[in-house]
Amino acid sequence: MSGRNALFIPGPTNIPQAVRAAMDIPLEDQRAPDFPQFTLGLFRDLKKIFKTDTGQVFIFPSSGTGGWEAALTNTLSPGDRVLASRFGQFSHLWIEMCRRLGLEVDAIDAEWGEGVPVETYAERLKADKQHRIKAVLVCHNETATGVASDVAAVRHALDAASHPALLYVDGVSSIASVDFRMDEWGVDLAVTGSQKGLMLPTGLGIIAVSPKALQAAAGAKLHHCYFDFADMARTNKDGYFPYTPATTLMRGLRASIDLLLAEGLDQVFARHQRLAEGVRRAVAAWRFQLVARHPRWYSDTVSAIYVPEGHDANAVVRRAYERYDLSLGVGLSKLAGRVFRIGHLGSLNEVMLLGALAGAELALNDTGVPVALGSGVAAAQEFWAAAKPAAMPAPKRAAVR
Amino acid sequence: MSGRNALFIPGPTNIPQAVRAAMDIPLEDQRAPDFPQFTLGLFRDLKKIFKTDTGQVFIFPSSGTGGWEAALTNTLSPGDRVLASRFGQFSHLWIEMCRRLGLEVDAIDAEWGEGVPVETYAERLKADKQHRIKAVLVCHNETATGVASDVAAVRHALDAASHPALLYVDGVSSIASVDFRMDEWGVDLAVTGSQKGLMLPTGLGIIAVSPKALQAAAGAKLHHCYFDFADMARTNKDGYFPYTPATTLMRGLRASIDLLLAEGLDQVFARHQRLAEGVRRAVAAWRFQLVARHPRWYSDTVSAIYVPEGHDANAVVRRAYERYDLSLGVGLSKLAGRVFRIGHLGSLNEVMLLGALAGAELALNDTGVPVALGSGVAAAQEFWAAAKPAAMPAPKRAAVR
Amino acid sequence: MSGRNALFIPGPTNIPQAVRAAMDIPLEDQRAPDFPQFTLGLFRDLKKIFKTDTGQVFIFPSSGTGGWEAALTNTLSPGDRVLASRFGQFSHLWIEMCRRLGLEVDAIDAEWGEGVPVETYAERLKADKQHRIKAVLVCHNETATGVASDVAAVRHALDAASHPALLYVDGVSSIASVDFRMDEWGVDLAVTGSQKGLMLPTGLGIIAVSPKALQAAAGAKLHHCYFDFADMARTNKDGYFPYTPATTLMRGLRASIDLLLAEGLDQVFARHQRLAEGVRRAVAAWRFQLVARHPRWYSDTVSAIYVPEGHDANAVVRRAYERYDLSLGVGLSKLAGRVFRIGHLGSLNEVMLLGALAGAELALNDTGVPVALGSGVAAAQEFWAAAKPAAMPAPKRAAVR
Amino acid sequence: MSGRNALFIPGPTNIPQAVRAAMDIPLEDQRAPDFPQFTLGLFRDLKKIFKTDTGQVFIFPSSGTGGWEAALTNTLSPGDRVLASRFGQFSHLWIEMCRRLGLEVDAIDAEWGEGVPVETYAERLKADKQHRIKAVLVCHNETATGVASDVAAVRHALDAASHPALLYVDGVSSIASVDFRMDEWGVDLAVTGSQKGLMLPTGLGIIAVSPKALQAAAGAKLHHCYFDFADMARTNKDGYFPYTPATTLMRGLRASIDLLLAEGLDQVFARHQRLAEGVRRAVAAWRFQLVARHPRWYSDTVSAIYVPEGHDANAVVRRAYERYDLSLGVGLSKLAGRVFRIGHLGSLNEVMLLGALAGAELALNDTGVPVALGSGVAAAQEFWAAAKPAAMPAPKRAAVR
Repeated sequence: MSGRNALFIPGPTNIPQAVRAAMDIPLEDQRAPDFPQFTLGLFRDLKKIFKTDTGQVFIFPSSGTGGWEAALTNTLSPGDRVLASRFGQFSHLWIEMCRRLGLEVDAIDAEWGEGVPVETYAERLKADKQHRIKAVLVCHNETATGVASDVAAVRHALDAASHPALLYVDGVSSIASVDFRMDEWGVDLAVTGSQKGLMLPTGLGIIAVSPKALQAAAGAKLHHCYFDFADMARTNKDGYFPYTPATTLMRGLRASIDLLLAEGLDQVFARHQRLAEGVRRAVAAWRFQLVARHPRWYSDTVSAIYVPEGHDANAVVRRAYERYDLSLGVGLSKLAGRVFRIGHLGSLNEVMLLGALAGAELALNDTGVPVALGSGVAAAQEFWAAAKPAAMPAPKRAAVR
Repeated sequence: MSGRNALFIPGPTNIPQAVRAAMDIPLEDQRAPDFPQFTLGLFRDLKKIFKTDTGQVFIFPSSGTGGWEAALTNTLSPGDRVLASRFGQFSHLWIEMCRRLGLEVDAIDAEWGEGVPVETYAERLKADKQHRIKAVLVCHNETATGVASDVAAVRHALDAASHPALLYVDGVSSIASVDFRMDEWGVDLAVTGSQKGLMLPTGLGIIAVSPKALQAAAGAKLHHCYFDFADMARTNKDGYFPYTPATTLMRGLRASIDLLLAEGLDQVFARHQRLAEGVRRAVAAWRFQLVARHPRWYSDTVSAIYVPEGHDANAVVRRAYERYDLSLGVGLSKLAGRVFRIGHLGSLNEVMLLGALAGAELALNDTGVPVALGSGVAAAQEFWAAAKPAAMPAPKRAAVR
Repeated sequence: MSGRNALFIPGPTNIPQAVRAAMDIPLEDQRAPDFPQFTLGLFRDLKKIFKTDTGQVFIFPSSGTGGWEAALTNTLSPGDRVLASRFGQFSHLWIEMCRRLGLEVDAIDAEWGEGVPVETYAERLKADKQHRIKAVLVCHNETATGVASDVAAVRHALDAASHPALLYVDGVSSIASVDFRMDEWGVDLAVTGSQKGLMLPTGLGIIAVSPKALQAAAGAKLHHCYFDFADMARTNKDGYFPYTPATTLMRGLRASIDLLLAEGLDQVFARHQRLAEGVRRAVAAWRFQLVARHPRWYSDTVSAIYVPEGHDANAVVRRAYERYDLSLGVGLSKLAGRVFRIGHLGSLNEVMLLGALAGAELALNDTGVPVALGSGVAAAQEFWAAAKPAAMPAPKRAAVR
Repeated sequence: MSGRNALFIPGPTNIPQAVRAAMDIPLEDQRAPDFPQFTLGLFRDLKKIFKTDTGQVFIFPSSGTGGWEAALTNTLSPGDRVLASRFGQFSHLWIEMCRRLGLEVDAIDAEWGEGVPVETYAERLKADKQHRIKAVLVCHNETATGVASDVAAVRHALDAASHPALLYVDGVSSIASVDFRMDEWGVDLAVTGSQKGLMLPTGLGIIAVSPKALQAAAGAKLHHCYFDFADMARTNKDGYFPYTPATTLMRGLRASIDLLLAEGLDQVFARHQRLAEGVRRAVAAWRFQLVARHPRWYSDTVSAIYVPEGHDANAVVRRAYERYDLSLGVGLSKLAGRVFRIGHLGSLNEVMLLGALAGAELALNDTGVPVALGSGVAAAQEFWAAAKPAAMPAPKRAAVR
């Protein structure tokens, strides 16, 4: 098949050249005397990505799912009560994990297409006078539905109820792509993975932990070992690890952070917003519906899009892949067959995204879904052409691309 | 700058992953006993690309321009007469090279936008009763104007005049992308480079030479050494080279040929034709003119496109690059400022090309050139959506992409 | 620093070129319709590495330590009794993990330099009439001491006692380098990692599980989720994963398995044995002692070597790294400062190893440890020069190296 | 075949990781507006490698042989007289090239094993009162014999005779490895290639040209075009090229120069000298003879070594390659079968070289050549162990290796 695959799933994302180069290296001795020089700087700069000064960052050889487990098992005890909400496949899976780990979950079901029900959270927290709830879970960006939730509002609800529960955030598909403010929002455990906004292969579960959460870890009773914060903290402080770290991915992470900080986090977020809005204009031009029910829930990293009734979204995704080498995301769980998803996060620009929109139009058309060819492309173009200069900064180009 | 550069100049082109992997290797001993096993197979399969059984292929560490010089200096003597035509920057440069090498050129000027003037060639050949013309030059695909010429017709003209001159073809931007039939068309010297249809970095000048041309080489008097066919032939027959060959590029060439033969040359040509026609539909939808004056001269590897009077094509190209990281070709020489070029050759598919067309529309719009956003994209999509199944084969996907 | 680092720690090891190339690729959609074609073949061939027909192989994004945890948490319940032995840092750590996961460990201390005390195991198993022991742990190759243990003998002990406990083997630094026969030896859970004999970066915990162990998993009560066999089994059967897999490492694993199977596992083992014996000859020529106390415990993947009394092994290792860019292993835990280690596993040949031995001699000499320069090199050379032809097969060379 | 090939031919040499990374990139537009920023800096820093302030550097897509031709054809006219000497295969080939290009060569034959006969040069120049000699050729480092010549002394001879001939130096296997001082030595044309001290793949012919030589170029009459200085100069001044440049190699060249300048040219030269002397100590310990007849001719980049009478050097080289994956250089031309060569230039350190020496010993021993295993290794080690601290600088290590 000629040309390159267009990867527009909501993660893994496109790896920038500099990150590929940083990882395609011989292996190295993780006990070398100059290794800490590398790792200590990496921890320091990772904190900038989470926007935390007081927190501590851990890097596990795992996927983001491992990060979820690390957050829970290090800080909770069997039978601890967890407040959570379910409105998509990933918020669902995290709840399931809690249960399997022996936690008691107060799971609030919301419509798929809505985000964290902050008001209900607030009520439950206020009602929990005895502070039986030890953990409050927020899925910052539900990758299955393209829905973003308001983390700060959950913090407000906790504060309003003077509730001491820890705040856990699944930021796997948000952190490094949309604004995330660990310290300002009072997040206690923030989980992300390497293969989304960090533009790396899967393989690192990254977690930032507040001092309060680290304290809670001391008394937590859920059995665990691989994902232990204390083992990490004891060795990380000198720049080493309790077991062999994934050095090539960490070298790539260094390159990825360098790219993000060079572009500027605010510029990165503005770019994601600008690109996402272009996709939403295209969806509107197609006269399709987003799964996200209200603009306040729009995700800037992934759009989940209903195909019109009577059409098969899976056929569209398959056609896009098999005929056009365009990888779109399928609908998951209860959205299967009704929804396709466009990931628009990571290393991305307008030309790449326009190709994806145009390819999606072809795949829709080929599978009999009524769409005016070029209509979505034109809508996105018009939005981007009109976008203010501030949103279109003079690009900085790396010496080697 | 986020995302990847979209490379749509008429060469260098996009390197497929398999070709990159084949080149990113440690260096090797070009005198190793198992080296010929590699090179002899490479020569054998290169002949398939040129569609020659009787010819011999040489690989020089040089650009395509070096291939031009190799063709001339090996086969001609000072003062020899050359029949050539000029209708673009590259046909012009080859003529200039002839003059600087001490040849006498009968250069026919054609309009830029037309191809080799076959009728005039026929007349000149017929008139040359004494066979003073030793060489007939054809630029198969004029990269500056997006014009393809009819090589077979020039062969007919030679035959009709029973003229013994050698037939030289510049196939730098055609071979491996559009049909080229060395033996059938009676081509004596066919020159190409690595960085176009062969999807490699610049660095190899590749030339196929007919037995008749090899015979002519024996008596040729133009001084040369680096580009000598005989030195090459003497060592190549055992799989070695007279001086250090560019082994990494040759390893990449192996991978590139493997990709081309796996897709099938006819499928490669059909793909280029299908993609090129999509671009031409877009140009028509924009209501712009191609430099190529007639469909018989349409190039399937590059389209040179006039911007409307009063607009600056260079500004468009610069905007595309600086704002959208889209590399388009500028107009060259007398077309500078009036023309931009879209290269559509090599490792390419619809989604990539749609991105480029959409990006070009944005750059045109941003620089004040009137164009309906999405119009070109839609025209290309409509053509491709309607293209017959035969032209849309079930893709074969490599195990590792 | 000029030249390349010589990596002679007992893992990570040298990555072959073909494996690097296989991993340095764009990311891919792990839900693509043709993805299972890749993964199902990978599972099939991984079983050959473990020499199991009946077992099932799981691939986790983790280090080998994660593999240990996966083996334990999937098959045991809180308070279950584990029979284990400690004779080095890694056997120690696995025991510690058991305790932290809530298991009761019967830990037999052996001398560091000896292997699993099979006779004691046999006694304990025979004495355990009520079958309170649920798990028997064997560290196949103790990386800290360079000691190999006899897994088959432990199986015999279990059988002789008609004991139903599951047999767990840590094969992190043995599997794919020295012979391992899961089915023949009746191993129930065999754990390895990607960064040793499999010649990959750290990041995959790979575990092979017998049918009996899978059955035990159904009733096990240790809480876990990330490392769950059942989640994996349910999705793996169709070629997919319960969460995002580490696709680039898996593509590398494919290349690594291809190399191992092309060389032939028996040839791989013979090569490791031949190279290891050369190192041991060098140690003897230096008049140093191995930590391994008896030839039956010699490891073919790593040699732990005492420096003479009064000398600092850490200084030797540091000198080797800082002056000669040679990475040797330090002594761990109670061997710290007294021992240095040479890893001789993975992608390796005589010339590489001779360079390491010569470099070690220089570092020893530079730090004042008495050693005759060249003496170890000569001893290894003499062994290899005399090795029988059968052990020196005509090499097969890959087309691209 | 396990492990990596040990490449110890006198070029191509080992590519450093940073250089590989710099070249394994997507292709780029050589007409992009920011391209000159890259190329102008590259020209500037290349001049440091040649140690010239006043000269101009040209980069041709070619091998070093192309560089020879560029130097000659740009500056000489048919029938011009050239003073040269022949004492090895490469000095021979350059002379042959002169003849084939239509020059008249005064070729002095010296013993193979000696260098440029400076006294004879001085006599001829003094005798040439009419200044018929236009060019004086010096092969700085004869790669076939491992002989270095005294360029400065030839300059003195020219000056002593007040002779205006241009001084041409073949520095292909010397420049960037041993000291070369273009301006101080009054060199007019200095030629090198990418695949030796510059640690790149073959593919760039690099030539530095003095103002005097550029002036001579204006009146030169040898026909040429591809290798034209004036075409280059006209476009290079703005950072562009007259035809498509080999951009990936040039990106690698940037990385290579960065490495050389970071290490410091004087340190690079000292390292080559130190490593070369170790090899010579090994040769002495083996009781073999170098082809170089006197220490003043010892090459610090390659050693050509006679095997004892009655033995076949080709068999040694073949055995080294086939059994040990060690690439040594064969003897060329009249040295074929009597000599093997060890290249010791480029990205190299002691451990790598010790491996090669030990491997050579094994190959010698295997083919029946009497050699005490380990003897050469020990001699090299002893030299390096005794080398003064000044010659063993604290290494600087790149962040990513």
